[in-house]
Amino acid sequence: MPLLKKIAILGASGYTGAELVRLIATHPMMEIVALSADRKAGLEMSEVFPHLRHLDLPTLIKIDEIEFSNVDLCFCALPHATSQAVISKLPKKLKIVDLSADFRLRDPREYKKWYGGEHEALECQAEAVYGLTEFNRELIKSARLVAGTGCNAAAGQYALRPIIAADLIDLDHIIIDLKTGVSGAGRSLKEPLLHAELSEGAQPYAIGGTHRHLAEFDQEFSEIAGRPVKVQFTPTLLPINRGIIANVYVKGDSSEIYRTFKEAYDGEYFIEVLPFGQTPSTRHVRGSNFCHIGVVGDRISGHAMIIVTLDNLTKGSSGQALQNANLMLNLQEEMGLEMAPLFP
Amino acid sequence: MPLLKKIAILGASGYTGAELVRLIATHPMMEIVALSADRKAGLEMSEVFPHLRHLDLPTLIKIDEIEFSNVDLCFCALPHATSQAVISKLPKKLKIVDLSADFRLRDPREYKKWYGGEHEALECQAEAVYGLTEFNRELIKSARLVAGTGCNAAAGQYALRPIIAADLIDLDHIIIDLKTGVSGAGRSLKEPLLHAELSEGAQPYAIGGTHRHLAEFDQEFSEIAGRPVKVQFTPTLLPINRGIIANVYVKGDSSEIYRTFKEAYDGEYFIEVLPFGQTPSTRHVRGSNFCHIGVVGDRISGHAMIIVTLDNLTKGSSGQALQNANLMLNLQEEMGLEMAPLFP
Amino acid sequence: MPLLKKIAILGASGYTGAELVRLIATHPMMEIVALSADRKAGLEMSEVFPHLRHLDLPTLIKIDEIEFSNVDLCFCALPHATSQAVISKLPKKLKIVDLSADFRLRDPREYKKWYGGEHEALECQAEAVYGLTEFNRELIKSARLVAGTGCNAAAGQYALRPIIAADLIDLDHIIIDLKTGVSGAGRSLKEPLLHAELSEGAQPYAIGGTHRHLAEFDQEFSEIAGRPVKVQFTPTLLPINRGIIANVYVKGDSSEIYRTFKEAYDGEYFIEVLPFGQTPSTRHVRGSNFCHIGVVGDRISGHAMIIVTLDNLTKGSSGQALQNANLMLNLQEEMGLEMAPLFP
Amino acid sequence: MPLLKKIAILGASGYTGAELVRLIATHPMMEIVALSADRKAGLEMSEVFPHLRHLDLPTLIKIDEIEFSNVDLCFCALPHATSQAVISKLPKKLKIVDLSADFRLRDPREYKKWYGGEHEALECQAEAVYGLTEFNRELIKSARLVAGTGCNAAAGQYALRPIIAADLIDLDHIIIDLKTGVSGAGRSLKEPLLHAELSEGAQPYAIGGTHRHLAEFDQEFSEIAGRPVKVQFTPTLLPINRGIIANVYVKGDSSEIYRTFKEAYDGEYFIEVLPFGQTPSTRHVRGSNFCHIGVVGDRISGHAMIIVTLDNLTKGSSGQALQNANLMLNLQEEMGLEMAPLFP
Repeated sequence: MPLLKKIAILGASGYTGAELVRLIATHPMMEIVALSADRKAGLEMSEVFPHLRHLDLPTLIKIDEIEFSNVDLCFCALPHATSQAVISKLPKKLKIVDLSADFRLRDPREYKKWYGGEHEALECQAEAVYGLTEFNRELIKSARLVAGTGCNAAAGQYALRPIIAADLIDLDHIIIDLKTGVSGAGRSLKEPLLHAELSEGAQPYAIGGTHRHLAEFDQEFSEIAGRPVKVQFTPTLLPINRGIIANVYVKGDSSEIYRTFKEAYDGEYFIEVLPFGQTPSTRHVRGSNFCHIGVVGDRISGHAMIIVTLDNLTKGSSGQALQNANLMLNLQEEMGLEMAPLFP
Repeated sequence: MPLLKKIAILGASGYTGAELVRLIATHPMMEIVALSADRKAGLEMSEVFPHLRHLDLPTLIKIDEIEFSNVDLCFCALPHATSQAVISKLPKKLKIVDLSADFRLRDPREYKKWYGGEHEALECQAEAVYGLTEFNRELIKSARLVAGTGCNAAAGQYALRPIIAADLIDLDHIIIDLKTGVSGAGRSLKEPLLHAELSEGAQPYAIGGTHRHLAEFDQEFSEIAGRPVKVQFTPTLLPINRGIIANVYVKGDSSEIYRTFKEAYDGEYFIEVLPFGQTPSTRHVRGSNFCHIGVVGDRISGHAMIIVTLDNLTKGSSGQALQNANLMLNLQEEMGLEMAPLFP
Repeated sequence: MPLLKKIAILGASGYTGAELVRLIATHPMMEIVALSADRKAGLEMSEVFPHLRHLDLPTLIKIDEIEFSNVDLCFCALPHATSQAVISKLPKKLKIVDLSADFRLRDPREYKKWYGGEHEALECQAEAVYGLTEFNRELIKSARLVAGTGCNAAAGQYALRPIIAADLIDLDHIIIDLKTGVSGAGRSLKEPLLHAELSEGAQPYAIGGTHRHLAEFDQEFSEIAGRPVKVQFTPTLLPINRGIIANVYVKGDSSEIYRTFKEAYDGEYFIEVLPFGQTPSTRHVRGSNFCHIGVVGDRISGHAMIIVTLDNLTKGSSGQALQNANLMLNLQEEMGLEMAPLFP
Repeated sequence: MPLLKKIAILGASGYTGAELVRLIATHPMMEIVALSADRKAGLEMSEVFPHLRHLDLPTLIKIDEIEFSNVDLCFCALPHATSQAVISKLPKKLKIVDLSADFRLRDPREYKKWYGGEHEALECQAEAVYGLTEFNRELIKSARLVAGTGCNAAAGQYALRPIIAADLIDLDHIIIDLKTGVSGAGRSLKEPLLHAELSEGAQPYAIGGTHRHLAEFDQEFSEIAGRPVKVQFTPTLLPINRGIIANVYVKGDSSEIYRTFKEAYDGEYFIEVLPFGQTPSTRHVRGSNFCHIGVVGDRISGHAMIIVTLDNLTKGSSGQALQNANLMLNLQEEMGLEMAPLFP
């Protein structure tokens, strides 16, 4: 019997931490050896997340109680800013997948501009690999520290990277109108996240080019295009728990775009390009690591729309993290991530 | 005591019919004297809509059982195509507010193109007035037949008419990304409208310039602009019952746009222009006849977004119809429509 | 033109406060002259509840800034315990409708037992009238201080008072299995009230005879029966915002029970007894002051079930309060409360 | 490499069929070789259930096109009545797990009474084993035909079998007040199942002892008790897609009841008995094969309540079916069923 990889999860009391536990629970080659939660240290995971009560999990402890020499890979599901402070003090050879925003931006000035403070772990930043698996696979395999992408940033990039790379669209006219479920906001006590405030309605937020995931779009799209690219991006909060769906409006030839997607994602296990003209739905990826992409034309020629959907907690966050961890541990990339979406 | 206006509602067994009854129930100057429902004739309204059981309403009958000489105004909440057949046979002097699509398009060729058949009541069409109250008030006052707008078409026009009229935006770059609740689809038995298929998710439909409300956008915007205007329009079906919210992306100066809206809607009881940069929510108009409009800029100068929300069954349909009926009957425009939104 | 009654609302920044404003907004004989909100003093109501932005309302202030000599009736929508402290210091002749639990229990020992502290306004308590309108109408008309009932307590009493009074059921076998929407918990930041925690599921709470509304059941049913009556009561929190529905299991003859309800509620504007064997739905009372009651038998003879539904924020709280205020001000009881339920 | 078991699913276009496919997709010892759907024959599964589009599945065909000699086990997810007609014509040695109601009732008179027709496959009925796995495990292992239980019937039995067997409760005072998600009603086009009719509300149905799952309660409880047992059972339809939660009111000692449950379910992988006094939630079992049970006392001594929750599509139907199939095929009972619940 092969040796199981020993896994620690820091910040296990949030939704992305719980999602990691859910996924790893049936992963054939991993075992969870440590779970941390600062304010909830001392509690059992079943008290914090009763849906995990059937599992035999370690008690929640504080980070400095963890014996890292016993850990093969550490997921870091801590809040932004906290993450960099913690990671800079972890053993220098420990493999880490970070789910925060702290190591996504290569330029510290951009980090400061969007996140409002000096980066305090620039050394770690220098070795971090941006974790959009399908596009950085080789770098991720050999990385020590992988920075998970923003969930919205992942959705937008699946819809745009191949056609920016192929120079198929007008780079000055890109609009990402995205709708997102509420779990992306985490388990935080804020009035707009209450059921009575959120259900039965919809409202945009972070309007006008202020959402932090724009920093990832700027960084990645500009690098691919070899020139500055700025997109418009508006998220709308929906009364659903999981799921992101984005309408991406571009100027370009929809047939060429479709062909490019079919080629770009050919052989990608988790990316499904739908038949031309079909529209994906968040319902059809819920709880899974799949990403569905549709391409449609418009009655106005020269316009196209790409529609992309994924589960923000899985493919947009913890599933992506596990996919990257598999690569870093030399395991099969899709291991533990093959579950079908939950519908209805 | 003033004489109450006698009202008939054709097609009272659908959601827009029930919404008319809800509104008229507390209207101080109207009384419902006839309700029709073809397949449900013979039933009491309380059997079809138990939420109306406290009202003393006429039994549902067939249209040809109605004594129209006794009716001051007739709301026609019938399906498209049926409506024109019925209305062409009603008394020629009867005041009518039609909620279907049948009399919205002035050009019969456009009707045929979008609705797929010859128009069979061209004479009525010729006298029909397009019922977007705030913009056609004077014509509506003296109209015999008013054509209610599409609910999405209303939302889009509130966001665009003033700034197209003021020549403030690039007419070749208008995108309406709209999200809508399910009651707009009516009380019809279709698989995608089932709770198990619709809740907890979101999916665009009628993509690529195929939604019929585009015909209204084309007609109205082109007339205002004095040149052909074609917009992009994508609706997404949300797991909410009531409410439309549209992000309208335009190229223009957001401050000028805001100023124009403040002026255009100054004094309009039902239109609320929010402080610059604020975003409306469907929740804040639910069940009411109000329309909230927000204007925001973008980090990319020269781009702006207008966000408009209304309740598709009220301001988008039955509320608009009642507002128009008030004008046609020489009553105060907001009579019976002053109820505050229901939140939470 | 008749003189409008001048109304103050203390605690206007919660859901019951906002619901009072919604209702009074179209009340023909009331005007709001003061709104208080301790921590939100200085804000406009439209900032706290944007759905009320169309109204011309006084700015939120602190209670001690209110000029009560100018007030005809004061609604008190403050938290439990706070309410008694505030009310004991208000002018002694001011008419007050309290929506908290503070004045519901006539026996201070019961208050202490269920609410955990000494009552600090026993003098006020002595004159308080229990505000279940249909059963205390005459006392309410002449009361200075009316104590609004618990929302669950109202539902349970509508289902049981007439048949306990008529001695139709076994008093030792009464089970109230109640389901409630989340707005009953108020606008409070608690993890179980988050959308991600509450939607798509159901869970009982306050189990085993611990819910405080049992105190009202004990008090009222025992008084009616002339002997101690203790019921079993289990609430389940549902992923809906408004609405309470209770299955009340009793041992008795279902036909007699039905007949008794028909008689007891004959002429009551807000209480609808459905045809025998029909089941009410929360959807059919949402946003209204109506209460629907169904009576059904069981295949096991001698057992019956009463099903009662009402909107917790309206008939269960703010609507009831307004109904009582109408009586106290010598206005028509249903004034401002005739709006039909909102469906869908 | 071990030989995979070859699986056929009849009626794959319904929710239970799709759920079987979801589960079997990651089952390490099964492969799907045939899928039938009468009216949808010729379609791909991805057209009927896009959430399964990543799977390489056989095209939907008609039942008589299936080569059963090639099948190790057949799941039958057909409607009631159809199932018996089909199964009576399948090969006599084919192992079958039926998910319909057709083979649940051992007494054909009871079948006729509850389902309204003569049973047309009495020979098959005679050999059918009732599929409540934890209580019929040995019989199921050697069965050829296993009858899946009703989803509500499963929930009620988990809450009552051990304590009826242990003679701990008053058999004449058992009330099951159950709440259920909508997927239990299947993918059928009925008005009450529309999102606009079902969301944001709750309503009991099949009241007064008319729900067909009562037939299973009668049969099983009476057999266990050795005397006729009739329970009261009222289901309420909730606006959730998955999940059943039942409050079961009994007269008995809550501590003894708790102890009995702990013993009865000790070692059962899928049954979690919560610490005394805790309440389960549908959210904590969603999408999984787990069943959570809570036991609480009441302030009235001698009364207890058992709260049981499970996912109607998984543990209540397709998960149970797969658990039974594992036993029939001599596989590990929990194989393919170990996924954690999906939360949030």
